[in-house]
Amino acid sequence: MDIRNSTDLNQLVKEKNFKTLKHELAKLREADIASFMDDLSTENVVIVFRSLPKDMGAQVFSYLSSDMQEHIVKSITDQEIASIINELFIDDAADLLEELPASVVKRVLKNASPEARTLINQFLQYPPDSAGSIMTAEFVDLKKTMTVRQAFDRIRKTALDKETVYTCYVIDANRRLEGVISVKRLFLADDDTVLSDIMETNIISATTTDDQEWVAQLFAKYDLLSLPVVDHENRLVGIVTVDDVVEVIRQEATEDFQKMAAMAPSEKPYLKTGVFSLAKNRILWLMVLMISAMLTGGVLTKYEQAFVALPVLVTFIPMLTDTGGNAGSQSSTLVIRGMALSEITTRDFFPVLWKEFRVSLIVGAALSAVNFLRLVLMYPGEYLMALTVSLALYATVVMAKTIGGVLPLIAKFFNTDPAIMASPVITTIVDACSLIIYFKIVEVMLMP
Amino acid sequence: MDIRNSTDLNQLVKEKNFKTLKHELAKLREADIASFMDDLSTENVVIVFRSLPKDMGAQVFSYLSSDMQEHIVKSITDQEIASIINELFIDDAADLLEELPASVVKRVLKNASPEARTLINQFLQYPPDSAGSIMTAEFVDLKKTMTVRQAFDRIRKTALDKETVYTCYVIDANRRLEGVISVKRLFLADDDTVLSDIMETNIISATTTDDQEWVAQLFAKYDLLSLPVVDHENRLVGIVTVDDVVEVIRQEATEDFQKMAAMAPSEKPYLKTGVFSLAKNRILWLMVLMISAMLTGGVLTKYEQAFVALPVLVTFIPMLTDTGGNAGSQSSTLVIRGMALSEITTRDFFPVLWKEFRVSLIVGAALSAVNFLRLVLMYPGEYLMALTVSLALYATVVMAKTIGGVLPLIAKFFNTDPAIMASPVITTIVDACSLIIYFKIVEVMLMP
Repeated sequence: MDIRNSTDLNQLVKEKNFKTLKHELAKLREADIASFMDDLSTENVVIVFRSLPKDMGAQVFSYLSSDMQEHIVKSITDQEIASIINELFIDDAADLLEELPASVVKRVLKNASPEARTLINQFLQYPPDSAGSIMTAEFVDLKKTMTVRQAFDRIRKTALDKETVYTCYVIDANRRLEGVISVKRLFLADDDTVLSDIMETNIISATTTDDQEWVAQLFAKYDLLSLPVVDHENRLVGIVTVDDVVEVIRQEATEDFQKMAAMAPSEKPYLKTGVFSLAKNRILWLMVLMISAMLTGGVLTKYEQAFVALPVLVTFIPMLTDTGGNAGSQSSTLVIRGMALSEITTRDFFPVLWKEFRVSLIVGAALSAVNFLRLVLMYPGEYLMALTVSLALYATVVMAKTIGGVLPLIAKFFNTDPAIMASPVITTIVDACSLIIYFKIVEVMLMP
Repeated sequence: MDIRNSTDLNQLVKEKNFKTLKHELAKLREADIASFMDDLSTENVVIVFRSLPKDMGAQVFSYLSSDMQEHIVKSITDQEIASIINELFIDDAADLLEELPASVVKRVLKNASPEARTLINQFLQYPPDSAGSIMTAEFVDLKKTMTVRQAFDRIRKTALDKETVYTCYVIDANRRLEGVISVKRLFLADDDTVLSDIMETNIISATTTDDQEWVAQLFAKYDLLSLPVVDHENRLVGIVTVDDVVEVIRQEATEDFQKMAAMAPSEKPYLKTGVFSLAKNRILWLMVLMISAMLTGGVLTKYEQAFVALPVLVTFIPMLTDTGGNAGSQSSTLVIRGMALSEITTRDFFPVLWKEFRVSLIVGAALSAVNFLRLVLMYPGEYLMALTVSLALYATVVMAKTIGGVLPLIAKFFNTDPAIMASPVITTIVDACSLIIYFKIVEVMLMP
C-alpha cells in the first residue's frame, strides 16, 4: 500500500500537480507522509510541506528525519517557524533544537511563544539519554479532592493538547505528585467517588536524571503506558509515554549492536549516513584492535623455531584462534545482553564464572574429540600431534569462555560499558592467549 | 526498594510467618511479587502462591517464569487450576499451555470453562511468533450506530475484563472490522455524536499469521497503543497491546544477539538456563565454524615453503585475519540491524555494495598507512616487506567490508535469516580469503 501510494505521489510532485497532491496527502497518516517526504529532493520537500493541511504540519514535521527538519526550518518564514514550534510537543521541539546549528536555534527560539521558550530551555538542560530528555510536559493533572465526574470534565476539556490522557496525575498545590489514576479506573468508579479514595498512591516514577534504559526496564517490568517524571523535590515535571520507550528500546539495542561490533554508535539509518561518517565511526576501534593484534603476532616470533621445524603447526592456528574467539564471543554476548536486560548484575560474578567454566568443559570436550578424530584421519600415525592440537583446543575453549563470561562484569565493575567486551575485544585477547597456550603445549609435548 | 522488600519477605518465609507475609504481599505490585516468587524454592513457592490475596493470584501467575508456572500447576488442586485458567487473559493462558507437558495441559483444559477452552484451543493453533500468538481476545467492541454516550456506557460496563479500553473497535453484525476509535477521540466529541461520524476508517491492522516483528514495526512507526488483528475474512479476532510489543522487541533483539554470536536462540534468562542447555545451544555452530576454520588452515599448507623461507611472515597472520574479521563484522552488523529495523531491504543491494566499497577504501587506507609506518620502524630497511603486508591489509579490508555488507542481503534473498551472516561466519570466510590474498601478494612481491 505504502509503495503504490508513494509512486503515485512522486508522480504528482513531478507533474507539479500540487492541488491533487494536497488532496491525496490529507488522506494519509502523518507517519506515512513523513516517510514519503524524507525521500524527496530538498527543493521539493519545502513545496510539499507547504501544501500540507494546516493542522497536520507540526505532526508530520515531528516524524521527519533531522536532516529534513533542518532543511525545512532554514527555508521557511519566521511566521511558519512560529506555528510549527508552538504546535510541537515540548520534547519534540527540544529534540529538534538539539540537532540544529546554533544560528538556526536562535531564530527558532525567537519565534516561539514565551511559555514554549521557557519550557524548551528547561528541557534542553536535561542530560542526553535521561528520563528528562525523553519526557513530555503535556499531561493531565488532577486534584485529589475532585470527583470522578469533575475529573472526566477536566480531561475532556484539556485532552486536545495532551500527549496521553489515559493516565492522570494527582498533584498538590506545590505540584508534588500525590497519586496516579488510570482512565480505566475512572471508568470503573461511580461518578461521585472522590479521587483520593481510588487513586494509586504506591507510585512508580523516575527522576529527570534517571537513565532512559532504566526507564525502559520499568515499562517492561510493570507493563506501563506512561511514567511520571519528578524533579529532586518530588515535583511532577513531565511524563514519559510508551511510544517514546519503544523508540528507546530499539535505539539502545541498535547502539549495543554497533558497540559490540567495535563501532562508535550512531542513531542515523545506515542508508542515510554519509561514507565519511561511516568510516569515522569504524576507524578508531579497528586501529586499536589492529595494534593489539600486532602484539599478538609478536607472541609468534618467540616460537619461530617451532614452526620452522614443524611447519604444519602453522596450519592449525586459524582453527585454534577462530574457535577460541567464537567460543568467547558466545559467552560475552550472553552476559552483555543479560546485563542490558538487568537479568545479570556484577553480584553474579561467581555464578557466571562457575557456569561458563562448566559449559566450557562440555563444549571443549565435544570440539576436541571431533578435532582429534579429524587429525588422526588426516595425518595417520601422528597421534602425538593430534593429541597436542586437541589439548590446546580444549584449553583454549575453557580459557575463552571463562574470560568471555567475566570480562563484561569486570568492565561494569570499573564503570565501563560492558558492551565493549564483545566479540572483537574478546577475540583479540583470546587470540594472544590461545597462541601462548598452543605453543607452550607444543614445547612440552613435541619439542625435544 | 525491591531489594529491601525481598530480604524482609524472605525472612518472613523462613520464619513461616505467612500471616504477616500475606499482609505484606498485598501491598506490592503483581510484577514485584512474581520476581520475589521466582527466586523462592519450589516447596515455598506453592505456599506463598496460596497465601496471595484471591484477586491477585491469576495476575501474579501470568508474570511468573514458565518453570515456576509449571511447578505450581502440578502442585495445586483442580479447583485452584480452574480459578487461575478462567481468570487469565486468553493469550497468557495459551502461553502457559505451550510450555506445559501434554499430560498437564489435558488437566488444565479439563478445568477451564467451556468458553475459555474453545478460545484457548483456537489461540494454540496460531503459528509461533505470529500476530495471532501474541494477541488477546479481550477488547471493547462497539457498533457504528452508537452515540458517544452509549459508547461510554458500554466501555464502563465491560472495562473490568478488558486488557485495554483505550482503543475501541467498531464491528458489524458479522464481526467485520469497520472502524477504530480512541477514547481520547470520544472525550473530545459531544455526547450525542454518532460513532460512524468520528471513527477512523483508514485502519492499520494485522492478520493472525503476520510475523510479530512486522507487528512491532507498525507500533514503532505509528506510535500505536494497540492494533486490531483480523482473520482472512477481515473479521476481528483479537488485538495486540503495546506491552506485549515491548516484550517482542526486547525478545527479538535478544534472539538476534544470540544468533549473531553463533548460538541457537533461547528465551530463558541466562542465570536460569542449565549448563547442558547452554552447551547444547552453542556446540553446533562452534563445530561448523571449527571445521570451516580447518579448511582455512588447509590454505596455509600450500604456502609452507614461503613461511619456512621467511618465518616472520607468520607473525603478521593474526593482525591480518583479525582486522579483516573485525572490518567485515562492522559492515555485516550494520546491514543486519538495518534489515531488522526495515531500513534496508534486498533492493538496496547495490547502494550497500557501493557504500561499503567506498568506506573500505577510506578505512583501508588509514589502517595500511599506520601498519606500514609501524613495520618500517620495527624492521628498518625492509621496505618491500612492509609494503607487501600493508598492501595485503588494504586488500583484506576492502574484501572484508564488501563481503560483510552484502552477504546478509544475499542470505535474505535466499530466504535465510540474515543474522546468520554475522561476526563468526564473516570472520571464517574473511580469514580464508585474507590468507589467500596475503600469500598471493607475498608470492608476487617477495618470492624469487
